[in-house]
Amino acid sequence: MPKISPLAPSRQPHLAPVAGVRLAATASGLRYKGRKDLALFVLEPGSTVAGVFTRSKTAGAPVDWCKAALSRGSARAIVVNSGNANAFNGATGMSAVRRTVSLAAEIIGCDEDEVFIASTGVIGEPLPVEKIEAALANLHGQVSADAWQSVAEAILTTDTFPKVASAATEIDSVPVTLNAIAKGSGMIAPDMATMLAFIFTDAAIEGPALQKMLEAANDRSFNAITVDSDTSTSDTALLCATGQAGNAPVSASGDRRLAGFKRALDTVMIDLAHQIVRDGEGASKFISVTVSGAASKRAARRIAMAIANSPLVKTAIAGEDANWGRIVMAVGKAGEKADRDRIAITIGDHPVAQMGARVEGYDEGPIASHMKGQEIDIAVDVGVGRGKAQVWTCDLTHGYISINADYRS
Amino acid sequence: MPKISPLAPSRQPHLAPVAGVRLAATASGLRYKGRKDLALFVLEPGSTVAGVFTRSKTAGAPVDWCKAALSRGSARAIVVNSGNANAFNGATGMSAVRRTVSLAAEIIGCDEDEVFIASTGVIGEPLPVEKIEAALANLHGQVSADAWQSVAEAILTTDTFPKVASAATEIDSVPVTLNAIAKGSGMIAPDMATMLAFIFTDAAIEGPALQKMLEAANDRSFNAITVDSDTSTSDTALLCATGQAGNAPVSASGDRRLAGFKRALDTVMIDLAHQIVRDGEGASKFISVTVSGAASKRAARRIAMAIANSPLVKTAIAGEDANWGRIVMAVGKAGEKADRDRIAITIGDHPVAQMGARVEGYDEGPIASHMKGQEIDIAVDVGVGRGKAQVWTCDLTHGYISINADYRS
Repeated sequence: MPKISPLAPSRQPHLAPVAGVRLAATASGLRYKGRKDLALFVLEPGSTVAGVFTRSKTAGAPVDWCKAALSRGSARAIVVNSGNANAFNGATGMSAVRRTVSLAAEIIGCDEDEVFIASTGVIGEPLPVEKIEAALANLHGQVSADAWQSVAEAILTTDTFPKVASAATEIDSVPVTLNAIAKGSGMIAPDMATMLAFIFTDAAIEGPALQKMLEAANDRSFNAITVDSDTSTSDTALLCATGQAGNAPVSASGDRRLAGFKRALDTVMIDLAHQIVRDGEGASKFISVTVSGAASKRAARRIAMAIANSPLVKTAIAGEDANWGRIVMAVGKAGEKADRDRIAITIGDHPVAQMGARVEGYDEGPIASHMKGQEIDIAVDVGVGRGKAQVWTCDLTHGYISINADYRS
Repeated sequence: MPKISPLAPSRQPHLAPVAGVRLAATASGLRYKGRKDLALFVLEPGSTVAGVFTRSKTAGAPVDWCKAALSRGSARAIVVNSGNANAFNGATGMSAVRRTVSLAAEIIGCDEDEVFIASTGVIGEPLPVEKIEAALANLHGQVSADAWQSVAEAILTTDTFPKVASAATEIDSVPVTLNAIAKGSGMIAPDMATMLAFIFTDAAIEGPALQKMLEAANDRSFNAITVDSDTSTSDTALLCATGQAGNAPVSASGDRRLAGFKRALDTVMIDLAHQIVRDGEGASKFISVTVSGAASKRAARRIAMAIANSPLVKTAIAGEDANWGRIVMAVGKAGEKADRDRIAITIGDHPVAQMGARVEGYDEGPIASHMKGQEIDIAVDVGVGRGKAQVWTCDLTHGYISINADYRS
């Protein structure tokens, strides 16, 4: 793994077991020599599952498989490999998925549509599925309740640190836990999910309720980040509930007993989304962009993303240059309503512009100081309505160019 | 000026006079010490004008002025400054425009709505209009028919070479000429025009016909390029016709006598658009992206732009890496119809993918050789219809980061 991102969390939680989930990782030799690249999750019978996936028109075969399998809503196994996305491989791509599913179902003793697959890595190279087949039975023999860290490492590609999050809450006074892991560093502009995220709870929650909660939390977390505006072929986020905590199963996402669970789900998903940005390829700054005063929430999101994806905004921040004119430019190009002569901008709580022009007595000093920090806060009010959104991104540095001009991920 | 782009044309035409156009440039001290930053074009009475402008919601005051002045359709003067975009300056921005217009009209002896203004440079800093006022009368005293090169240099910002183009054609057997200059290097994703382009002809063509032809040619030239996906607040392209060539004035853009003129206009505008890409900030490769088989021309354009704007595609090309899986990714994220299992890709005439997967017997050798050249050709057929489009871009290199993290343009 390359040098760890300077924005990595200073410490990460140890993930305790989630009742009903066992897991393991191994080096199958798929692509990287001697590096873990294959992970298996095994879930107890009765586990429900929800999923969100890339809306890419060139989505990989594993995404096609998962979307179809999701209609049953039951999960017994998830097989994840890094190093090869098994995307754009035509019929051989789906054939590789089916071979993996078939073997996993046989080993675990479940139906094929209870097996989920996620693959991440290079696009357009045939997946050497025989390496997965050779490793799977042995991997199944190794599953334990404690291998979270090992699995979080196995699913990485250009990431510089594993991404884990955990939360505890209650449903109906019954304690339930949530463990979540993710990977992602480049090709991050999730259209509905991120690269790969896997979230597990021992709560008993029926599939449709789980799905609704996942979609809502996803909108506030993975869908609110971008590293480089490029959307992956393989984005997959799965949320599995084993029901082992013993609470009475909840069937409606609107059920008030789920209030604490929803907060916990938001917390771990936003935490992971932030970790992905903090591990953005070449990142040296973590940037929060808040847009208010837009015509709608959707408009606010689009303007915020235009700012967050602007190479000129991102390079200015990399250079610690308070060149906020580029923020104005990005608002202008977003294609959403904005009243140029009412726009207000603050950077790190310091007003820089009001009513469509630089503030009177503008002093670049405190803004320049803020730009030297690792956490950059940009807020823009576009002066036309009440729509508001927040997104997160990182800066664009020489590191991004080095990683992507030299490395075939 | 920094080191000249390696993609700069090996030689550029000398621009001969266009009857009815005189021009000059000077160093007004607006921003850069001792560097030309102010240009004046003076046109003979009777000159018609057409214009296309940025669709940015935060367009600068000069753009507002030009759009309004265009309704009369007559041009006697164009004042251009570099170093300050006079954008996002509130009421003082328009006041600076009005002061410049008023003085220019007085000096030249024309109406105010015959004066056009274009400004390029930093956004959000008040324009020191008194420097323009101090320089304008003297500049008017210097206008000549021969100062094209000097003016082409004065309008540059981060550009590494001046951009000029010229063509000769006939209308009704009367010889007419076209001279054109442009600037642009970063913040290039024209939504309808480029940064700044000025095109002059001695032909007699009425304003509405001129406008239609400009819009059509603009669609095939400046609207078909991108450097960094960022759209300027100041994009302006003006086409002026002095009528001095002596042809009988033409009033309809559909008039068959204009066939040669349209070809000549296309030629100079596509030439300038290519020069802007060749001077893209940090560029080391000139990339042509052709998309066919799309649902419509518009869909093809959007897919081509998704490829041309993808940081991962552009960095792969910078690294001379034939990582065409990233092209698949970009097609997928464009949001337009594409049949994943019918997509075909060629790079430099070498087929790499057909029917949604890598070609049989794929050999990276010839593609890797093509990637080492300066001219990269990518063609993608997305397999759903007959829509076709071609766009041009450059790669994304360390040079882009250095220029934009260090320099406040």
